[in-house]
Amino acid sequence: MRIHSMMLGAAMALALDAKADEGMWLPSQLPGLAKNLKEAGFRGDPKDLADLTRAPLNAVVRIGGGTGSFVSADGLVVTNHHVAFGVIQYNSRPDRDLIANGYVAADRAGELPANPDYRLRVTVGFDKVTDRILAAARGKTGKAYYDALDAASKVLVAECETEAGIRCSVANMFYGRDFYLVKQLELRDLRLVYAPPRAIGNYGDEVDNFVWPRHAGDFTILRAYVGPDGKPADYSPDNKPYHPPSHLKLATGGVTEGDFVMLAGYPGITYRHRTAAEFADQVEWRLPTAVEVLKALQDVIEAKGKDDKEAGIRYASQLQSLKNGIKRFSGELEGLRRSDAVAVRRDDEAAMLAWLATQPDGKTLRPAIDQVLALIAQGKDVRERDLLVGLLSSQTQLMKGALAVDRLSVERPKADAERETGYQERDEELIRSQLKQIQRRYDPAVEKALIASMMLRYQKLPDAGRLPEVDKVFGRSPAELAKALDRIYAGTKFGDEAERTRLFDAAPAEAAASKDPLLVAARTLRPALLRIEDERKAREGDLLRLRPSYMQALIAYREKQGKAVYPDANATLRVSYGKVTPLMARDAVTYAPLTTVAGIVEKNTGMAPFDAPKPLLDAIHKGDFAGYADPKTGAMPVDFLSNLDTTGGNSGSPVLDAKGELVGLNFDSNWEAVSASWMYDPRYKRAIHVDMRYMRWLVDKVYPSPALLRELGVPSK
Amino acid sequence: MRIHSMMLGAAMALALDAKADEGMWLPSQLPGLAKNLKEAGFRGDPKDLADLTRAPLNAVVRIGGGTGSFVSADGLVVTNHHVAFGVIQYNSRPDRDLIANGYVAADRAGELPANPDYRLRVTVGFDKVTDRILAAARGKTGKAYYDALDAASKVLVAECETEAGIRCSVANMFYGRDFYLVKQLELRDLRLVYAPPRAIGNYGDEVDNFVWPRHAGDFTILRAYVGPDGKPADYSPDNKPYHPPSHLKLATGGVTEGDFVMLAGYPGITYRHRTAAEFADQVEWRLPTAVEVLKALQDVIEAKGKDDKEAGIRYASQLQSLKNGIKRFSGELEGLRRSDAVAVRRDDEAAMLAWLATQPDGKTLRPAIDQVLALIAQGKDVRERDLLVGLLSSQTQLMKGALAVDRLSVERPKADAERETGYQERDEELIRSQLKQIQRRYDPAVEKALIASMMLRYQKLPDAGRLPEVDKVFGRSPAELAKALDRIYAGTKFGDEAERTRLFDAAPAEAAASKDPLLVAARTLRPALLRIEDERKAREGDLLRLRPSYMQALIAYREKQGKAVYPDANATLRVSYGKVTPLMARDAVTYAPLTTVAGIVEKNTGMAPFDAPKPLLDAIHKGDFAGYADPKTGAMPVDFLSNLDTTGGNSGSPVLDAKGELVGLNFDSNWEAVSASWMYDPRYKRAIHVDMRYMRWLVDKVYPSPALLRELGVPSK
Repeated sequence: MRIHSMMLGAAMALALDAKADEGMWLPSQLPGLAKNLKEAGFRGDPKDLADLTRAPLNAVVRIGGGTGSFVSADGLVVTNHHVAFGVIQYNSRPDRDLIANGYVAADRAGELPANPDYRLRVTVGFDKVTDRILAAARGKTGKAYYDALDAASKVLVAECETEAGIRCSVANMFYGRDFYLVKQLELRDLRLVYAPPRAIGNYGDEVDNFVWPRHAGDFTILRAYVGPDGKPADYSPDNKPYHPPSHLKLATGGVTEGDFVMLAGYPGITYRHRTAAEFADQVEWRLPTAVEVLKALQDVIEAKGKDDKEAGIRYASQLQSLKNGIKRFSGELEGLRRSDAVAVRRDDEAAMLAWLATQPDGKTLRPAIDQVLALIAQGKDVRERDLLVGLLSSQTQLMKGALAVDRLSVERPKADAERETGYQERDEELIRSQLKQIQRRYDPAVEKALIASMMLRYQKLPDAGRLPEVDKVFGRSPAELAKALDRIYAGTKFGDEAERTRLFDAAPAEAAASKDPLLVAARTLRPALLRIEDERKAREGDLLRLRPSYMQALIAYREKQGKAVYPDANATLRVSYGKVTPLMARDAVTYAPLTTVAGIVEKNTGMAPFDAPKPLLDAIHKGDFAGYADPKTGAMPVDFLSNLDTTGGNSGSPVLDAKGELVGLNFDSNWEAVSASWMYDPRYKRAIHVDMRYMRWLVDKVYPSPALLRELGVPSK
Repeated sequence: MRIHSMMLGAAMALALDAKADEGMWLPSQLPGLAKNLKEAGFRGDPKDLADLTRAPLNAVVRIGGGTGSFVSADGLVVTNHHVAFGVIQYNSRPDRDLIANGYVAADRAGELPANPDYRLRVTVGFDKVTDRILAAARGKTGKAYYDALDAASKVLVAECETEAGIRCSVANMFYGRDFYLVKQLELRDLRLVYAPPRAIGNYGDEVDNFVWPRHAGDFTILRAYVGPDGKPADYSPDNKPYHPPSHLKLATGGVTEGDFVMLAGYPGITYRHRTAAEFADQVEWRLPTAVEVLKALQDVIEAKGKDDKEAGIRYASQLQSLKNGIKRFSGELEGLRRSDAVAVRRDDEAAMLAWLATQPDGKTLRPAIDQVLALIAQGKDVRERDLLVGLLSSQTQLMKGALAVDRLSVERPKADAERETGYQERDEELIRSQLKQIQRRYDPAVEKALIASMMLRYQKLPDAGRLPEVDKVFGRSPAELAKALDRIYAGTKFGDEAERTRLFDAAPAEAAASKDPLLVAARTLRPALLRIEDERKAREGDLLRLRPSYMQALIAYREKQGKAVYPDANATLRVSYGKVTPLMARDAVTYAPLTTVAGIVEKNTGMAPFDAPKPLLDAIHKGDFAGYADPKTGAMPVDFLSNLDTTGGNSGSPVLDAKGELVGLNFDSNWEAVSASWMYDPRYKRAIHVDMRYMRWLVDKVYPSPALLRELGVPSK
């Protein structure tokens, strides 16, 4: 694959050399990047962006699983159609299909309450607490270090969550180097104001997923409400619109190729600063193995589903999620290979270590760095065992339930604060509902075949890589495995919903003593699972202790290269900047960075997912684009493409122009960028945004709401 | 579909307005286009291109089914790999696989003789003979007019073909307005000098067929030989290289986006100047009906092939050709709809007729034009009948054979010159070989099902649209049809090869009297088939007589618009000019007009058809492109794209730069251009060429032949 990158034409080589617009910056880092921001075209003062709890960044909020932003003083929020999809679905009925038809609230009374578990969080505090988190951990190692951090975090969170409606968490930056206490105001009454029909909001659906050129109007407008006292409240007709501390201004124009853009949001997780060994492990072992193992599970479900249609239906959702995982992992693998990520990171790390050897503090840092590399190398011995044992509780239904009930019988006797995360009082409701869902998702023949698929692979591991408890439950040979599965699944009563509920309610009493073969199996496995967990915590504890040395070396090395370093994404607010950028997808193939309504007509077949609604087609035909068309080309824009640095969690992120005005909403990446969670390759990393001109035109001309446009500050044309 | 063209962005609209580089010009028209040629960038004197029997155009020859050109004084000819594929195949043996490995002749003795039926034709005469062709026809109408033209053509051809090695034909320009006698020298000893491996010459094969961006090195170099006396001769080791009257000069550089290019070749057939009614018929009836009818036949073969694998294999080739036809017709339909061809041509014709009404000779021309339109309208009554009856002899095997033997028994008693084209003495060998092939391609159950598919549709035609003879053979109901087919195919002995040969040899004697039910059926159908033929000739005779008036009006109308008119393609030498042009394929998708070797590496999977040979990959990796790379980008070119006007028959056509030097060979069109046989849409019409720099680099660096490069005047770098 190295040939590939060597063979790029001159234009691509230039793109490689150009200053990469990589970076998910902490707002506090932006003043230090003032020169770069200015060169890139930003016309504001980066100092104004330094505090995420003040305007304008406190207009950017977490909502659903993504990002949103306030766009009016009365609490209007824009986010993606797919981020608000649950709200639209919740309000749809056979006689009022908001998914198909979209929704335009006639007035405030017409704004429809979201599903009660839908949440919006405004960040109101972001304070460095590194010293308090690390105080008790100093001098400790392994699991003790991990537990000390965990305990300190829980204390800080409890101190912080004194007020109703406030949610707190501790964010770990640079892998254990810095810790921040994040304080968020959680709003619980969100209402649907405006949604386009599915055939606009999700035009192209799965066929166009990860695809550029794109033509989706992936936006929805909600409004946040609070109680009459101005505090977060559950829905009530007496509630009032929330007045956010700030809101973004919609741009009256738009952007075009080469223009500066920036984006703020809550990217979930990236691995950019992992070690070269972790890159190699990901590309050479983890991704190909995951694809192989998940494909085997997919084959099991498909084969069983052919013989038994009813079983096929029960496993449809698990099958879909396996397919998505396989597709995603394959795409990530393809991308990392295309970018030659292993070699690039290896050479980079080697250069860093060589440089470090010449530095005064090189001798101090190097031992800790060597320990990090050794710990990561040790992980190889147990990686396949841990992957397969992990699947036993993630890719089964009844087994997963039995393991959860068994674990609860260990955790419930403890004080709540001592209980393992995921098994505390607050988690019990979720466990109960999962036990209930088993009824719709389980078939014994399929589950036995799935476990056989994992465990046949497991049985081939060397002795040192296996666990005696697992051997005891599933045997050492395919024949013993088959016999064990037959015995367990023929004998268990756990498939009966009432029995599951009884055991759940009565744990630990009933569960701990149960002779049900499935619960006996779970109880037998328990010490092994707890041991794996403790091993993991010990390894993570040491990594949390030692990795900051690696990061210190990396940051210093980058500084010497003239580059700043952002912490890997961790669901805290970050800012990226870059520009509207075309994509040279393949030899001689260039994708322009703006799409137009002509593409909607081109793609339209009249059949889902290319079934644009008649009002949209009529409006395109009519061509009344005045005030919204691109001034250069005269064409009506739909979506645009940038090189902004994004990952999952950035859905709905506001895209701002050089003046800080809202010009787009982020909603997807191109397929070539799936690997960007590990490596930002400037040739291929692109983010896909819906153009606010398209949103405004739809609200003005196609499904009009003049009142909404007035409130947004961009009145009808 | 009109929305589509209305919705184009401004850039596309510009392309529509720009002066279209449409036109397959007769060389004699070029001096009249001198101003346009100069504006387009041509740096030579158009007068030098006016005579296709003189240099440089007499270097452009017909070869195989396409076009070639002489490129050395000693008779070297370049054409496409796919045009010379038969020659490569003919010379391949299991121990010498020239298809897989390519071929580099070590010296002249190593040049391999082509298959004996491979031909090259040099045009040596091109004279207007309109008066002699029309003399006897004047005053006649219908079939008599047609027959008079046919007889006059045969006389001229006989007069012309006095010398051995000379082949003559009469070409009809502007639908009966002008006639030319084409005189060609036919060379019979061609030899293979240089061919790349299939994985270069046809890189991408069917997957990339009609696709841009393309990465095929679709060229092959042959040499023409003549007898020691300098005259055309069959292969003999005593033959000498042919010294062509002229040859093209290979350019030492190349072209880039926007550069002028021109192309000369033998395009087969186009329909650009057909009437609006014929456009409508093609789009609204003929193409959709053909797709529907052929799909039904495809379904029959696929269904039968599932039940009977052996039958499936026998019909594999017919199935493939049905699929190709369906694909081509669908593409043409899609393209004509995309270009809104019916409306565009309708509006154009209406404007022409309106303008004509204001002209002095409008009154004279109009009655003939009205007759043309009436004749075309009449064709509607019999079009479906003729289509289905035509399929009876084109999409059957045994029935086709019986119809041919029956027809021979009518034709053989006549003087050879009087016999119908296709049934003359020269055609008998072909008929005999087709009768022989039936053995490998026929299954009675499949043939009955195919005929049933056509005839069930036929039975639904109104009484006036059917033929009594067909009704008599196949009945008037599905039940009668099934019974008739069972009876005919159970009773016939024509499936026996010896019996077919006996009847063929003995026709008319045995065939005319045969009681074999299939021959009886053919004999019963005969009067209907002859009647259809006579009706067609009568219609065509009148159209040949009257259409020149339509053309006269069209030419005058175009003159008023400032445009010249070229005759529709008819396999005579034509010249197109235009420029190297990108393709805006879809909204936001632009294809650059030059591909590079980077694309070969990108596409390469190691599996056919993307299995570039190791020597090529190594050479790309090595990157020794000096003297061949594009000076602007530094990249090594492979293929390029232009807006040149081409159609089938232009394969292998030389592409020349502004100085008239050879820079490329035409080898394909993009998928969007399939409809260009009817309408040249400047937005989508592109031609695909192999870059001579790629050819020269391969001959220099990858499969070297320094002697060949010296002879081509472009020595190794």
